[in-house]
Amino acid sequence: MKNFDINEDPHRRFNPLINEWVLVSPHRAKRPWQGQNETIATEALPNYDPTCYLCPGNVRANGVNNPNYESSFVFENDFAAMKQDEIIFEEDIKHTFFKAKPEQGISRVVCFSPRHDLTLPEMEIEGIENIIKTWQKEYTDLGNIKYINHVQIFENKGSVMGCSNPHPHGQIWAQSSLPTQVEKTQNSLKTYFDKNNRTLLEDYLQAELKTGDRVVIENDHFVALVPFWAIWPYETIIISKRAVNKITDFTADETNAFAVILKQLTIKYDNLFSTSFPYSSGIHQAPTDGLDHPEWHFHMHFYPPLLRSATVKKFMVGYEMLGESQRDITPEKSAEILRQQSDVHYKSTKK
Amino acid sequence: MKNFDINEDPHRRFNPLINEWVLVSPHRAKRPWQGQNETIATEALPNYDPTCYLCPGNVRANGVNNPNYESSFVFENDFAAMKQDEIIFEEDIKHTFFKAKPEQGISRVVCFSPRHDLTLPEMEIEGIENIIKTWQKEYTDLGNIKYINHVQIFENKGSVMGCSNPHPHGQIWAQSSLPTQVEKTQNSLKTYFDKNNRTLLEDYLQAELKTGDRVVIENDHFVALVPFWAIWPYETIIISKRAVNKITDFTADETNAFAVILKQLTIKYDNLFSTSFPYSSGIHQAPTDGLDHPEWHFHMHFYPPLLRSATVKKFMVGYEMLGESQRDITPEKSAEILRQQSDVHYKSTKK
Ligand SMILES: O=P(O)(O)O[C@H]1O[C@H](CO)[C@@H](O)[C@H](O)[C@H]1O
Ligand SMILES: O=P(O)(O)O[C@H]1O[C@H](CO)[C@@H](O)[C@H](O)[C@H]1O
Repeated sequence: MKNFDINEDPHRRFNPLINEWVLVSPHRAKRPWQGQNETIATEALPNYDPTCYLCPGNVRANGVNNPNYESSFVFENDFAAMKQDEIIFEEDIKHTFFKAKPEQGISRVVCFSPRHDLTLPEMEIEGIENIIKTWQKEYTDLGNIKYINHVQIFENKGSVMGCSNPHPHGQIWAQSSLPTQVEKTQNSLKTYFDKNNRTLLEDYLQAELKTGDRVVIENDHFVALVPFWAIWPYETIIISKRAVNKITDFTADETNAFAVILKQLTIKYDNLFSTSFPYSSGIHQAPTDGLDHPEWHFHMHFYPPLLRSATVKKFMVGYEMLGESQRDITPEKSAEILRQQSDVHYKSTKK
Repeated sequence: MKNFDINEDPHRRFNPLINEWVLVSPHRAKRPWQGQNETIATEALPNYDPTCYLCPGNVRANGVNNPNYESSFVFENDFAAMKQDEIIFEEDIKHTFFKAKPEQGISRVVCFSPRHDLTLPEMEIEGIENIIKTWQKEYTDLGNIKYINHVQIFENKGSVMGCSNPHPHGQIWAQSSLPTQVEKTQNSLKTYFDKNNRTLLEDYLQAELKTGDRVVIENDHFVALVPFWAIWPYETIIISKRAVNKITDFTADETNAFAVILKQLTIKYDNLFSTSFPYSSGIHQAPTDGLDHPEWHFHMHFYPPLLRSATVKKFMVGYEMLGESQRDITPEKSAEILRQQSDVHYKSTKK
C-alpha cells in the first residue's frame, strides 16, 4: 500500500464542464510505439495557389469567383451540413425509440487571410484581430436570425483533423438547437451560477492561477492553460479573465489581448514538434436564443491530436469510445512542456 | 415550406442509450473529398511472423516467451493503462475543481488465433466460439476479483484505429469504476427498466424487427442492425434476442449463434470496400459489482471509421468535438448497403 501520487499513479479526473471523467495513466507515455504514423506536409506552400478554391479570385465548386479579398473573407459553405429551408414537422410522440426532428441551420467558411501559406501563429496581430472582428460580426449577424439559437465557431487545422485545404480557414455552423456538448456545458454552468452567483470558469480560473501548475500563458485579459481534466495530450483552453458571456462583449483591449494569446499559444504549439501543429479548436459562448445568459463565460477549446512527435498521435479508440477518454501524460507535465516552448516561431528562427 | 422527409432533410436523432443527439445530413454524402486518404495495408500477411510479439513462441517486450498456443491466448498487457496496486487515498472535499481519485485495474490482451494472418471474418465458427468462451472466462475471473466492478472487452482493428499489430487480438480493461460511457448507458437502462419492467433493448429490438429498415442480419438468437441513432457511417450493434445481462448467461446455442453473426457481420464489413475493414468494437453488459442488474441487456457495438472507400474515413473533428456527432448518410441507407453485401468473403471468391 502506498499513498496516492497524482503524478505517478493511474487515476480518474472529473470534468465539471460536461460532468464526465477521464482516465489518466501517467506511466504509460513510456510504452514503445509500433503503430500508424501520420504523414505531415513538409514542403513550403506558395503564397497563392491557382488550384485552391479559397484563394482570392479563384473559382469555387459552385462556379462563383472569390473576390480579391485582402483580410478575411466569409462565404456560405457549398456543402453545408444543414439547410435554411423551413420544414413542416409534426412530432410523433409514439416514437420512444425513433425520435427525430428537422434541424435548420447555416454553415459558413471563414478564410483567415488571402495568403495561402499563412497560419495563425505566423500572422500579424492586426490580421488576427481582424479574424476576431469577423467572428464578432458573424456571431451577431447569424445570431440575429430568428431561428438561429446557437453559433458554433471552429477550426479544423491539418489533414489529420479532416481539413481538406491548407489555406488558413475556419468554419461556423449556426443552427436552431443547442448541440449536445454545448447543452451539457450550459447545464453545468447554470447549476454553478445559480448556486454561487459567479461563473464556474471565473472561480476555476482563480484556482488555476493560484497553483499555476497548468497555466501556459497569461496576459492582462486572458489565460491559456491545460485544463485539469484535459483529454487530449496537449489540450488547452483559453479563458477570459472577465466573465464575459460572448465574443461581442470584448473591449478593444480584450480583442487585442485575445489576438496576442492566440498567436502565442499557436506559436508554442508549432514549436513543440517543429511542425504546423494540427488541432480542432472552437469557441463556447452564450447561445443566441434571445435570453440572458449570465452563467456563460467565454472560452475557447483547443483539441490537438499529437502525442509524441509530429507524426504520432493519440488514438481515441476502443476503450475510449466504449469506456471513457484516457490520457498517457499528466496535464501538469503537458503544461510544463508547452510553457517551456519559445515564443518565437521555429520557422522565423531558422532564417 | 415542405414536409419533413427523414431521407432528405437535415435532422437530429436521439440516442436513448446515452441521452445524446446526433446531427444527420443525408444530402452531404455527395460532397467531393480532397482531404486525407488512409494508407491501407494490402500485402498478404504470413501465417507466422518471427518479429510479431503476439505470435506463438515469440518473445514479448517484457522478455517472456509466448507459449505455443493453439486457439486463443490471454496475457497481461505489458503497458497497462491501470495498475493493480492498492493506493491509500483521502478525498480532499475542498477541491471543487481538482477532483481526482486513484483507479485500480487490470489490462489483458486476447490473441484470437495463433495465425498471424487470420481475422474474425476468415476464422472458422469453432475458432470464434473459442474466443467467446475466452471472453466468458475472463469476464468471470476478472469480475470475481474484489475490486473489479467493470470488465470492458474490446477490439481495435486496423492501423487507422490505433492498432499497432495486425495479429488478430482484442483487449480487456477491467477496473474498479464504471467508465463514463457505461455509466451513462446504465442510467438509461435502469430508468427504462424501473418504469417498464422490460429492458430498453428488448423493446427497441422489437420495434426494429417490426420495421426491418435498419436490420442487417438476424438469426435465432441475435440481430445485427444499424442503430437509429448511429454516429459512424457503418456503425452497427449486435443485440441478443433474449434479455441476457451478460455473456456468461449464454446457452450453448446462443454462443454458437453469436459466433455465426460475428462472422457474418465482419464478412459483410470486409466486402463493403474489399478491404480488411477497420473498427473498434466492444461489449456492453452488466457490471461485476456483485449487484443484480436486471436492466442490463447484452450488446456489442461496432464503430468503423470508413465512409466512402477503403481509404476515406469520416473525421469526427471540429463541429463534432465542440458541438455534436454528425453523419453524412442515413442509418437506413447504410443498413441497406450492408444487407446487400455478399455472405462470402471477397478473398475466398477471388481464388
Ligand atoms: O493498447 P494499444 O493497442 O497499444 O493502444 C490502443 O488502444 C488503447 C485502448 O483503446 C488506446 O488508449 C490507445 O490510444 C491505442 O493506440
Ligand atoms: O467541412 P469540411 O472541412 O469539409 O469537413 C470537416 O469538418 C466537418 C466539421 O467538423 C466534419 O463534419 C467533416 O467530417 C470534416 O472532414
